[in-house]
Amino acid sequence: MPTRYVHRQRVEFSETDMAGIVHYASYFRYMEVAEHAFLRSLATSVTGMEVAWPRVDVGCSYRAPLRFEDEIEVVLVVRERKEKSITYGFEIARVAPGPTTIVATGHTKVVSVAMDHATGAMRAVPMPEAFAALLEPMTAE
Amino acid sequence: MPTRYVHRQRVEFSETDMAGIVHYASYFRYMEVAEHAFLRSLATSVTGMEVAWPRVDVGCSYRAPLRFEDEIEVVLVVRERKEKSITYGFEIARVAPGPTTIVATGHTKVVSVAMDHATGAMRAVPMPEAFAALLEPMTAE
Amino acid sequence: MPTRYVHRQRVEFSETDMAGIVHYASYFRYMEVAEHAFLRSLATSVTGMEVAWPRVDVGCSYRAPLRFEDEIEVVLVVRERKEKSITYGFEIARVAPGPTTIVATGHTKVVSVAMDHATGAMRAVPMPEAFAALLEPMTAE
Amino acid sequence: MPTRYVHRQRVEFSETDMAGIVHYASYFRYMEVAEHAFLRSLATSVTGMEVAWPRVDVGCSYRAPLRFEDEIEVVLVVRERKEKSITYGFEIARVAPGPTTIVATGHTKVVSVAMDHATGAMRAVPMPEAFAALLEPMTAE
Repeated sequence: MPTRYVHRQRVEFSETDMAGIVHYASYFRYMEVAEHAFLRSLATSVTGMEVAWPRVDVGCSYRAPLRFEDEIEVVLVVRERKEKSITYGFEIARVAPGPTTIVATGHTKVVSVAMDHATGAMRAVPMPEAFAALLEPMTAE
Repeated sequence: MPTRYVHRQRVEFSETDMAGIVHYASYFRYMEVAEHAFLRSLATSVTGMEVAWPRVDVGCSYRAPLRFEDEIEVVLVVRERKEKSITYGFEIARVAPGPTTIVATGHTKVVSVAMDHATGAMRAVPMPEAFAALLEPMTAE
Repeated sequence: MPTRYVHRQRVEFSETDMAGIVHYASYFRYMEVAEHAFLRSLATSVTGMEVAWPRVDVGCSYRAPLRFEDEIEVVLVVRERKEKSITYGFEIARVAPGPTTIVATGHTKVVSVAMDHATGAMRAVPMPEAFAALLEPMTAE
Repeated sequence: MPTRYVHRQRVEFSETDMAGIVHYASYFRYMEVAEHAFLRSLATSVTGMEVAWPRVDVGCSYRAPLRFEDEIEVVLVVRERKEKSITYGFEIARVAPGPTTIVATGHTKVVSVAMDHATGAMRAVPMPEAFAALLEPMTAE
């Protein structure tokens, strides 16, 4: 049973900045893209559930820069699963050109919320049971 | 009666790319920011109306690059106002450092639509009369 | 000999805005990603040449909105090739879900420039002959 | 002697996503904009020094969502200053509409590096003394 989900993509030009390397905020985009691809791999979608999943805590540590056209792999693990939240852990590696190198690690903690569409207010609620069951095999021991 | 609306801002780091200059798509961000500031100057807001305003045609011509920390002015004119659409024209100028220089010109055509929130479908409808009246003094002859 | 280059990708969450659809500036990102993938398909890269390729004129017309997780195809053609410039034409189609639908058309005119790295000044120059030869089979009649 | 630097700005449309609120990665943009405005307030600039300042560790915790046209204040403090690094702390507050509310807190750790422009390699080096002296009055006790 797989306990890691791997998403591969390529660094695009618009993700770089005038320092000639990928802008630091772009890494959060990579993590989010991997999270959404992971949910699709479970035959679900972040937008198809009765709850929404705002982020409550995120972080990223950078070890080496990424550059335009680098091929990267984002490895996602479910680091912690509670009744109302999930913490995903991420490792971002450059896989080409050159030898595979971990360039960044990060995390994203998301909370299951019910949205009051009239007021926009959010309230943390237990995640749907069917979704919790889907995550079960991914949960790190 | 003013017929041009001027919005001033500064080029931010994340708007640049590895070529060392502002990424070409960032100019559409500048135009949109100026359009929304213009609507606020009329005491209205793009999100406070009973219609939505999707873009149907946009363009930009670039004469000179912009760089980090340049101060810019975006000049907005109402180039054409029809029953269901507005075409805004834009001139983007670097005002510092150095002499004022027009670096880009562009346009944005937006259409007044009613959204069917159940299906997401959009249908062009006449813009609200109160808003059309607000635009009247700005309409280029 | 292929005269169209097709790049397929998926709409990501961060490309949407509060209207619930893809932000209009994201389409320029899609066009640029397709252009760079096209160059890689010719075994070259926008950053591996002795010239740089700033945009001088771009545009996009929108027919229908795109939404999160839509699968899209960006079709690129070389609409015009001159000594110092290329105009790419683009058709963006939603290919899933639902029947294939063209949602936007656009263009990007890029100019071959030599960069003076000391001053940052750019000067239009003829594109490298080897690159012009690569483009030859793609040039629309 | 000021020990906090405050930067005020407004939430723009392109910073939102289809959830109707500001996209989580946009908060890193707000922190970076405040950091660069802080450096300008010291009559220096992130790009005018002999060293570059890549991020090595960043994080953000979210307490409440931000929406289009909210007015925000980003409060920057120098949380830690070492020979080769600075850790900035940030508080992001909505100041209008409604009562002032802290919506997020974050940090950015940047390292002073010398860039080898031939190879792109970076090496941590002590920050310029003149810049360290500028930071002195801001350093939190």
